[in-house]
Amino acid sequence: MGKVLVLYYSEDGHTEKMARLVTQGAGQVTQTEVRCKSIADASRDDIFWCDGLALGSPTQLGTVAAAMKKFWEELLPDWQKLDGRIGCAFSSQGGWGGGAELTCQALLTILMNFGFLVFGVTDYVGDQFTAHYGATQAGEPREAKEKEACQRLGRRLAEWIAVYADGRRELHPLKGLYKRNPWD
Amino acid sequence: MGKVLVLYYSEDGHTEKMARLVTQGAGQVTQTEVRCKSIADASRDDIFWCDGLALGSPTQLGTVAAAMKKFWEELLPDWQKLDGRIGCAFSSQGGWGGGAELTCQALLTILMNFGFLVFGVTDYVGDQFTAHYGATQAGEPREAKEKEACQRLGRRLAEWIAVYADGRRELHPLKGLYKRNPWD
Amino acid sequence: MGKVLVLYYSEDGHTEKMARLVTQGAGQVTQTEVRCKSIADASRDDIFWCDGLALGSPTQLGTVAAAMKKFWEELLPDWQKLDGRIGCAFSSQGGWGGGAELTCQALLTILMNFGFLVFGVTDYVGDQFTAHYGATQAGEPREAKEKEACQRLGRRLAEWIAVYADGRRELHPLKGLYKRNPWD
Amino acid sequence: MGKVLVLYYSEDGHTEKMARLVTQGAGQVTQTEVRCKSIADASRDDIFWCDGLALGSPTQLGTVAAAMKKFWEELLPDWQKLDGRIGCAFSSQGGWGGGAELTCQALLTILMNFGFLVFGVTDYVGDQFTAHYGATQAGEPREAKEKEACQRLGRRLAEWIAVYADGRRELHPLKGLYKRNPWD
Repeated sequence: MGKVLVLYYSEDGHTEKMARLVTQGAGQVTQTEVRCKSIADASRDDIFWCDGLALGSPTQLGTVAAAMKKFWEELLPDWQKLDGRIGCAFSSQGGWGGGAELTCQALLTILMNFGFLVFGVTDYVGDQFTAHYGATQAGEPREAKEKEACQRLGRRLAEWIAVYADGRRELHPLKGLYKRNPWD
Repeated sequence: MGKVLVLYYSEDGHTEKMARLVTQGAGQVTQTEVRCKSIADASRDDIFWCDGLALGSPTQLGTVAAAMKKFWEELLPDWQKLDGRIGCAFSSQGGWGGGAELTCQALLTILMNFGFLVFGVTDYVGDQFTAHYGATQAGEPREAKEKEACQRLGRRLAEWIAVYADGRRELHPLKGLYKRNPWD
Repeated sequence: MGKVLVLYYSEDGHTEKMARLVTQGAGQVTQTEVRCKSIADASRDDIFWCDGLALGSPTQLGTVAAAMKKFWEELLPDWQKLDGRIGCAFSSQGGWGGGAELTCQALLTILMNFGFLVFGVTDYVGDQFTAHYGATQAGEPREAKEKEACQRLGRRLAEWIAVYADGRRELHPLKGLYKRNPWD
Repeated sequence: MGKVLVLYYSEDGHTEKMARLVTQGAGQVTQTEVRCKSIADASRDDIFWCDGLALGSPTQLGTVAAAMKKFWEELLPDWQKLDGRIGCAFSSQGGWGGGAELTCQALLTILMNFGFLVFGVTDYVGDQFTAHYGATQAGEPREAKEKEACQRLGRRLAEWIAVYADGRRELHPLKGLYKRNPWD
């Protein structure tokens, strides 16, 4: 079984809604166990448990919320013990152009510091909408493509875990099992 | 007279349309001279001429187009001769979440390398739309708020030049001369 | 009088030592008042008081310390009231290649979110040593060039404030008042 | 056999020297085939051939050289056909604080855009020296720890390929097969 952790911090509920969708997406891959937890409920055991992790924070001042950053600083005693897990990011910002890509990049930097292999999603999930460096959103996801971006991120995470941690090569995204772009 | 250069590279015309809007916005500030040039038409004289510069590139692979990067590499003989100018960035990406914020950040990095002081726009120009780290767009600007983001960026550039290069303190954005957010 | 705030967070004293050096450098510019404060001692009044700010944080997991981030989140009620100040960054990391540049970039992102104009230092302060995107250090500054990088950053901040906030054009770094590189 | 491509662009030979060391490091992992090529000699076949790639560019103006960027833009017809490879970065800058971390981040962004899973090295390879977000250097590697940073990056790439692409779990860096830090 692939083990996916969706770990988030949310203040106004937007990033939490994204987390639920990422969780749904991860669940689309068979033989995957998914935990969705806010940092208030997650422990170091959850981090050690997972094969890979989708990390979500609201964009605050163009970067990660202090509360999320603090969670990882408290994990420093476990640094160099987590290498090789797979990671990705998502973030809700106040408005488009508000820094959610920069926040995803900061989240990925934190994960890389812990030795994670990190990725984005090449797919387009709708007209002019993608999650190349993580799923980004202004406010909460409402349109189908906005929801799909979160789901696809979770699905891709579960797929990479299936392929790389579990050796299920038949699930590789390049196998053409589903439509990856509106124009396909 | 404040001197503004809007310098862009465009392949499909989207970033060029943004450049035209940035130019319009800069022109909203009195006693401002504005040049709008593609890198094919701009020379080092334009760079030396200006007090400040709005730099635009399409997002390609999450960062600056090679052609735009090359333009600045060819200016290396003039490095350390341009310090103190003011700069900002804009970029058109294929889809939201496609890297335009990262591209703006790379454009600002190039300008910082040349000694520019760089900025973003704190204002919201419409519902859930801003240009905190430069104006970003998926494709070309169509909605009013998308156009306004480009215009506001150009206007803010002309304002900082007026305030800092020309000492016209009465034009400082904090003076409340105009509505900076939909909710004001 | 130009007003410079050097604002830092430090755990092991390394970033604090950098802050002291940045403060010294700012003091090299006449008619400049400099305050050096840790975030534990600084208030919003200090932020409003200054014309410009050098912001320092240890590099922790490749980005800003949670404590420093929290300081700025608590300033959110003053967002859009601070636009136009000038900012720069410095950071001490555990080792070279450890993320101090990324941390400086995150600090600058926070300042840009508040409407600051941010900059780096084009000068080389010694053999193979610069502060292009802020002053970076592994541990504490020990060699002359490492100390000089911090001092030059503070000096440059005070210079931009003199030139732009106080109209003292004769202090512009391009005026050739001092040697900016070892090879000059 | 794990297949590693070390792909670089170099003008003054510094990044090329790093590439040779990265290549040596990858060769430390048994059953690994390594190709080391400059972008002038590499083709799309090399990219498709490899399981993972270490990408190196000089830091120019704080980001990727235009020539390297152009190489990847020309690969755009193969976009969405390369997903799932593993990638990392290295860069030589003019001086410490000169942008090599930012360049590595830009290189990783390009690889992420093509669907790569990217990583850094948590290990310290000597006193105050690491490659957390890629191997960085001022000029060419001379000291033992500087050379080791490049080698460790290549070795780690070959290890992740062994573990994830070839299922050789016994080579996982957490297995304690070798000393990962000076203090171990």
